[in-house]
Amino acid sequence: MPAGTGAAPGRRRPTVADVAREAGVSVATAGRALGNYGRVRDDLREQVQAAAERLGYSPNAVARSMRSGGTRSIGFVGADISNPYFATAMRGLCDVAREQGYEPILANSDDRLEVERAAVSVLLDKQVEGIVVAPTSVTDLAHLERAKELGVPIVLLDRHIGALEADSVVIDNEAAAYEAVAHLLGLGHRRVGLLACVDPAEGPELVARTGTGRLTVRGAARPSIDRIRGYLAAVDDHRATSSAELIQYTPLSDAAQAQRRAEALLTQPQPPTAVFATDNVTTQGLFMAARRRGLAIPADVSLVGFDDLDWTTLVDPPLTVVAQSPLDMGRAAAVRLFERIKGDDRPAERIVLPTELVVRSSTAEHGHGVREHSG
Amino acid sequence: MPAGTGAAPGRRRPTVADVAREAGVSVATAGRALGNYGRVRDDLREQVQAAAERLGYSPNAVARSMRSGGTRSIGFVGADISNPYFATAMRGLCDVAREQGYEPILANSDDRLEVERAAVSVLLDKQVEGIVVAPTSVTDLAHLERAKELGVPIVLLDRHIGALEADSVVIDNEAAAYEAVAHLLGLGHRRVGLLACVDPAEGPELVARTGTGRLTVRGAARPSIDRIRGYLAAVDDHRATSSAELIQYTPLSDAAQAQRRAEALLTQPQPPTAVFATDNVTTQGLFMAARRRGLAIPADVSLVGFDDLDWTTLVDPPLTVVAQSPLDMGRAAAVRLFERIKGDDRPAERIVLPTELVVRSSTAEHGHGVREHSG
Repeated sequence: MPAGTGAAPGRRRPTVADVAREAGVSVATAGRALGNYGRVRDDLREQVQAAAERLGYSPNAVARSMRSGGTRSIGFVGADISNPYFATAMRGLCDVAREQGYEPILANSDDRLEVERAAVSVLLDKQVEGIVVAPTSVTDLAHLERAKELGVPIVLLDRHIGALEADSVVIDNEAAAYEAVAHLLGLGHRRVGLLACVDPAEGPELVARTGTGRLTVRGAARPSIDRIRGYLAAVDDHRATSSAELIQYTPLSDAAQAQRRAEALLTQPQPPTAVFATDNVTTQGLFMAARRRGLAIPADVSLVGFDDLDWTTLVDPPLTVVAQSPLDMGRAAAVRLFERIKGDDRPAERIVLPTELVVRSSTAEHGHGVREHSG
Repeated sequence: MPAGTGAAPGRRRPTVADVAREAGVSVATAGRALGNYGRVRDDLREQVQAAAERLGYSPNAVARSMRSGGTRSIGFVGADISNPYFATAMRGLCDVAREQGYEPILANSDDRLEVERAAVSVLLDKQVEGIVVAPTSVTDLAHLERAKELGVPIVLLDRHIGALEADSVVIDNEAAAYEAVAHLLGLGHRRVGLLACVDPAEGPELVARTGTGRLTVRGAARPSIDRIRGYLAAVDDHRATSSAELIQYTPLSDAAQAQRRAEALLTQPQPPTAVFATDNVTTQGLFMAARRRGLAIPADVSLVGFDDLDWTTLVDPPLTVVAQSPLDMGRAAAVRLFERIKGDDRPAERIVLPTELVVRSSTAEHGHGVREHSG
């Protein structure tokens, strides 16, 4: 922070009114110039910026103070609130907000960019002091950049965006998937299927065979993509079968379609002896498909799911899953958001929370099933 | 609507500016007088009201038009967003809002009145055009009355409030519970337990024995209370065992405590041969308790749950449940809210959506179990 030659007496933190007075402009003009919104004449903007520098301002603090001392509300934009992952993350965020005396305002993006944009815009209109968002896109960032320019800190949940200077709270998706698939391979399975939470129109485009014959994933970093990456790395490292036929794609939050895709996977001529599902909806679809096809778990097929939801322990057999804690992730995102709201200006961080492979009874050694293949 | 002696030409719906002009006051004063907020001199208030009557105004429309043509956002206050019932209702509400070009703003009340009050207050500050609320209390209504006075329509979800002139979208909780318990009694069970979603500190106060020896429920109408009422009516009508020992209480959204309470119910000296749980969390606790105690379902104990969540069909045996549709309830509440926002001023209605007893495999006739009592 530059030395404040015109700092107010007593080293009180300068207000936007101080900057306006120092620059000889109205408070509204000072706010617009510093918050980088609305129209300001170029010469006035320069006057304001010079005044701000003399007084030692942080633009964030200015933009915030313009919002009449803060609305004591924060926003959360999740992909699908009826998905237990987001519902639980929201719960963690709401708990922290309330501890801080803030009201959380929640919005739903449906995992669609235009809906997310509209939600962020509404939250900015509502003058929230910060936003936690589970971003739909890692490339279309204008709406998030705009929030930052208005002095509204952004914390990302579930997905990190390298191109955006914003904290993120994530898990190591690739490592978590690798561990899950390595567990199956360690049990002797050679044909391990993947039920991936990726739009079926997009999936086969993303996963393609390279010149060396290996399958690789293109495309920007997202949880599902990183989990496919972990699956492929484990399969390659263990020299197991790498085949596009062992992968099925199904969109977010469509359990019925996940079940149909899982049935296609389980009933192909040479079916996998084990399957990994990349999220909670695909895990449910996979379990239902095995049931519906009369397959014994794990005798006919071993299953590893993602997300340690209650139901995975209520079913028979209880499922082996990759556990993450959306409650902790929601809490951690909110805690960091409040640090930013209070003026913490260290560089953006990627906060990686742990996952755990919880081995229960849905996975067993290859070779004592009733429907095994020579593999 | 009174005949408009001073109606604008062409029968255009009069605006707040028309009322202000007619009354000879500023638009702001007209809005305050008609919306019943802020301070207005008594003589000016009378002038404005007379002008409004001459022009044929509805106060709601006036208050709404004051909010600069509408913010195109609506609010939803649910008890606990991590509960699948509320998460799914929110989903239905969000879908309708988006179809209408509105942004939904969601808040969480934690089923605590002071949190609900704060949430409603924030939503009013954010100038939402209407609010759907699952009310915590059916007696403390000042915050909801205030919203109505500001011209912000309220639609209640899950609970009806007789004392509040507001639409509600509900199910017939008493009839649904009666049907569930009658199903168990029809199978020959005489000792039917109840796991009720009511604060354990409050439950024994609410359910008390009358002079005739019958148990009755006091207390205002809430879903859980009405479901207890249905349980007691079915037990009485079938002359089955009516005993406070057959009832356990457990608070909303605490699956661990629900499980402990269910275990206490199932392990008492003369345990029930069938149990009805009043909501989805108690249903889960009940199922887990039976499992943990090594009880075969339905051989040792028959179970009927509430809410047709996915997991109830994934477990073994699939559970008999009372099915309601929170998605339809959220949608219906939003549809009605938009009718009100658009000026529909018919009297408040109680909209009752259907429930269905879905009989699966967790209920069986009394008498072919391995742990039966002479009953």
